[in-house]
Amino acid sequence: MANNLQDAAIELEKAIRESNEYQSLKDSYDKVNADPSAKSMFDNFRNIQIQLQQKQMSGQEITQEEVDQAQKTVALVQQHELISKLMADEQKMSEVITDLNKTIMKPLEDLYGAAE
Amino acid sequence: MANNLQDAAIELEKAIRESNEYQSLKDSYDKVNADPSAKSMFDNFRNIQIQLQQKQMSGQEITQEEVDQAQKTVALVQQHELISKLMADEQKMSEVITDLNKTIMKPLEDLYGAAE
Ligand SMILES: [Ca+2]
Ligand SMILES: [Ca+2]
Repeated sequence: MANNLQDAAIELEKAIRESNEYQSLKDSYDKVNADPSAKSMFDNFRNIQIQLQQKQMSGQEITQEEVDQAQKTVALVQQHELISKLMADEQKMSEVITDLNKTIMKPLEDLYGAAE
Repeated sequence: MANNLQDAAIELEKAIRESNEYQSLKDSYDKVNADPSAKSMFDNFRNIQIQLQQKQMSGQEITQEEVDQAQKTVALVQQHELISKLMADEQKMSEVITDLNKTIMKPLEDLYGAAE
């Protein structure tokens, strides 16, 4: 990769690290990890999410019981102040990354959009 | 999104547009589009690729006949100078984007990798 591309990517990486969204997410993540009961609740929630995603991606059917269980777990973790803050911060960070990706993909969109 | 994040993303977008990889891809793409027989061969190839991808993603079985047909089409388009140049340029651009994404995702990797 050419130097000016790499430099621009590193500048963007730096801007991400310095952003309020990233700093807030880091703070929320550290707080959950420092609280054993919050951490165990959050890890359990993440594991259930990952399992359901893997089932979905491999084409396995997800039972109504599993859906109910997942919804209960979401409702439970959302009542935990530290975890709900972390999840909200993850959502905001994810929106930032989506916006950045849109900007970066614009040159290719312009190219492939032009011939239609 | 904060201004410094947006500015850094726009700088990166500019660096992508000005990169040799993008300029070369654009040139190859324009040449294929300007050549009706190359364009029709390339469109046909892309359509076969997209159909197979969609089948795969929806969990449908891909027959041996379809695999053979796809391989024949790849072999055919690779013999076309303009198309093989375009495909090579697409591959290089895709590597650039992958590298950029790795850099941009580093802050999040550092965060989630730290607690394990
Ligand atoms: Ca197009
Ligand atoms: Ca981790």
